[in-house]
Amino acid sequence: MLAYVVDAKEGGVLRQNFPKPKREPGEALIRVLRAGICNTDLEILKGYMGFQGVLGHEFVGEIVETEQGASLPVGQRVVGEINLACNDCPDCRAGGVVKRNHCRRRTVMGIVNRNGTFAEFLTLPVVNLLPLPDSVSNEEAAFVEPLAAAYRIVEQNVIKCPDAVVGVIGDGKLGLLISLVLRQQPHSRLVAFGRHADKMALLPANVEKVLVDETTNDTFRDQFDVVVEASGSPSGIMLAGDVARPLATIVLKTTCATGRDDSFNTAPFVVKELVIIGSRCGNFPMAVGSLERKEIDVSPLLTRTYPLAEAPAAVKHAGQKGVLKIQLLMDET
Amino acid sequence: MLAYVVDAKEGGVLRQNFPKPKREPGEALIRVLRAGICNTDLEILKGYMGFQGVLGHEFVGEIVETEQGASLPVGQRVVGEINLACNDCPDCRAGGVVKRNHCRRRTVMGIVNRNGTFAEFLTLPVVNLLPLPDSVSNEEAAFVEPLAAAYRIVEQNVIKCPDAVVGVIGDGKLGLLISLVLRQQPHSRLVAFGRHADKMALLPANVEKVLVDETTNDTFRDQFDVVVEASGSPSGIMLAGDVARPLATIVLKTTCATGRDDSFNTAPFVVKELVIIGSRCGNFPMAVGSLERKEIDVSPLLTRTYPLAEAPAAVKHAGQKGVLKIQLLMDET
Ligand SMILES: [Zn+2]
Ligand SMILES: [Zn+2]
Repeated sequence: MLAYVVDAKEGGVLRQNFPKPKREPGEALIRVLRAGICNTDLEILKGYMGFQGVLGHEFVGEIVETEQGASLPVGQRVVGEINLACNDCPDCRAGGVVKRNHCRRRTVMGIVNRNGTFAEFLTLPVVNLLPLPDSVSNEEAAFVEPLAAAYRIVEQNVIKCPDAVVGVIGDGKLGLLISLVLRQQPHSRLVAFGRHADKMALLPANVEKVLVDETTNDTFRDQFDVVVEASGSPSGIMLAGDVARPLATIVLKTTCATGRDDSFNTAPFVVKELVIIGSRCGNFPMAVGSLERKEIDVSPLLTRTYPLAEAPAAVKHAGQKGVLKIQLLMDET
Repeated sequence: MLAYVVDAKEGGVLRQNFPKPKREPGEALIRVLRAGICNTDLEILKGYMGFQGVLGHEFVGEIVETEQGASLPVGQRVVGEINLACNDCPDCRAGGVVKRNHCRRRTVMGIVNRNGTFAEFLTLPVVNLLPLPDSVSNEEAAFVEPLAAAYRIVEQNVIKCPDAVVGVIGDGKLGLLISLVLRQQPHSRLVAFGRHADKMALLPANVEKVLVDETTNDTFRDQFDVVVEASGSPSGIMLAGDVARPLATIVLKTTCATGRDDSFNTAPFVVKELVIIGSRCGNFPMAVGSLERKEIDVSPLLTRTYPLAEAPAAVKHAGQKGVLKIQLLMDET
């Protein structure tokens, strides 16, 4: 089958005859319809995680082969959770989707020891699959994985009251999705902080937009009950700490590392007794439900679609400045 | 009166004739009996906070003058909370001791715009005072402020179940007090991580002691439900992130800043979805109660006592390696 693969020597390459995956017991074989390119994919192409195999973890597909008597039939359109639990360790035995997302022996589709979604076919355990209602398009469904990551913040229940003042730092794809999601949650004020007016202009009028400059930390100091950090920069975390009220909650949605020229200081977090919550997993049912109810419009975030055969050009495009979501189209029908 | 003062030009100096404070309405005038020297005091002497005035915030004293009809009589031995709320801002009007500890217009005794405890007399609002039972000695009572900071962790309710595996990073005065306090809380295992075998040897036998080296992060990776960071170093925070289990809680009890040679990376906090809680304030009633019930023995932490007239030598001693608590004695009687 056709697949876009990360090779230890060659980096990202298109393979014409990559072996079609075989369905294992408990799994479904899925024809991929669309896949989305994520920043993590671009990091993996630079060597992050030392991953080898089919790249990609965002997708919508159609079941072509499954367990006899499985709850989802052949032909069913699905999205799928990307963490594959071992089902045998203490974390897994403790149960629950969140626990399984933290299984220390898990594989992660397209990220850790498991082929991903930039291919004509993939396999996933049936328990990882979620059926799609007809009202959700393939274009929308390929956004479910990053949208689920945004809904994890809702699942973590960080907004405690309807008069909360809420901030989102970062105007990349994830930051914008988070602003779209939190707009649906109780709040008295929602402010998006970013460095790109053109990207923030994609957000609806009832989200305040603030272009970050050297005055921002002081202008908004001590005003926010909840701040989501999705810029992945040390300066973004410090901005979150500065604009947070005493006893406020900060959600860390992206990772970052300090370089030699970054300064990072924990004083605001300790002095204001802030609660900082890491947030990685996704809530897929919440994301599918929001698309079904037309609460979230992801279409402004789609920059362009490429056929899978042009994956190298698509990946290159995704890495350019100002570009939002690039999707790969596997099946033109 | 005799007072040890931070002067903008001269630094720390002993003054023979510093003005005795006058009691304002709502305040009590207190004769200081003992005061403790804290690491924050040593930082202030180096210029931290730009503080000027009488240094010190740990003390035990005796009321010599107070409001007519006040609940605590003249002669009562007391300790006192160090934050003085403005009582007029939105934080203060919201009420509660925790809210008042976060008043943005607060002064802080010996730290922000308010004279401290290294003097013969001080004044404090009556609402800041807590009476001491006779069974608590002056030596113990001078430990109430840092012990209250350790009890704030209990008040923040971070240990959720009796089989919790709990770690404390840092074997300075605060780290040792935290280990002594958490030993009284539900847990299945309590490990103190430090770099000084002699200091950790002061902890009781039922606290495990681990001398931190380059293997520690891997040896204890993913094992702890609750980790308290009290080393104030970027490497201490990274150790906390590494030894924490997925979805665990980390308490940041001390502040730190990264220098050019420190590396700091938020990946473990995001990937494991950790909850990080800043912790600054103190719970004075819990601290006094624990001393009254003889649950905590602070005496091994006292290195030496100096008369107030020898404050310069006492401060110098407090800054030496391996030294724990130094106390100043104001009244030999
Ligand atoms: Zn597992
Ligand atoms: Zn106030």
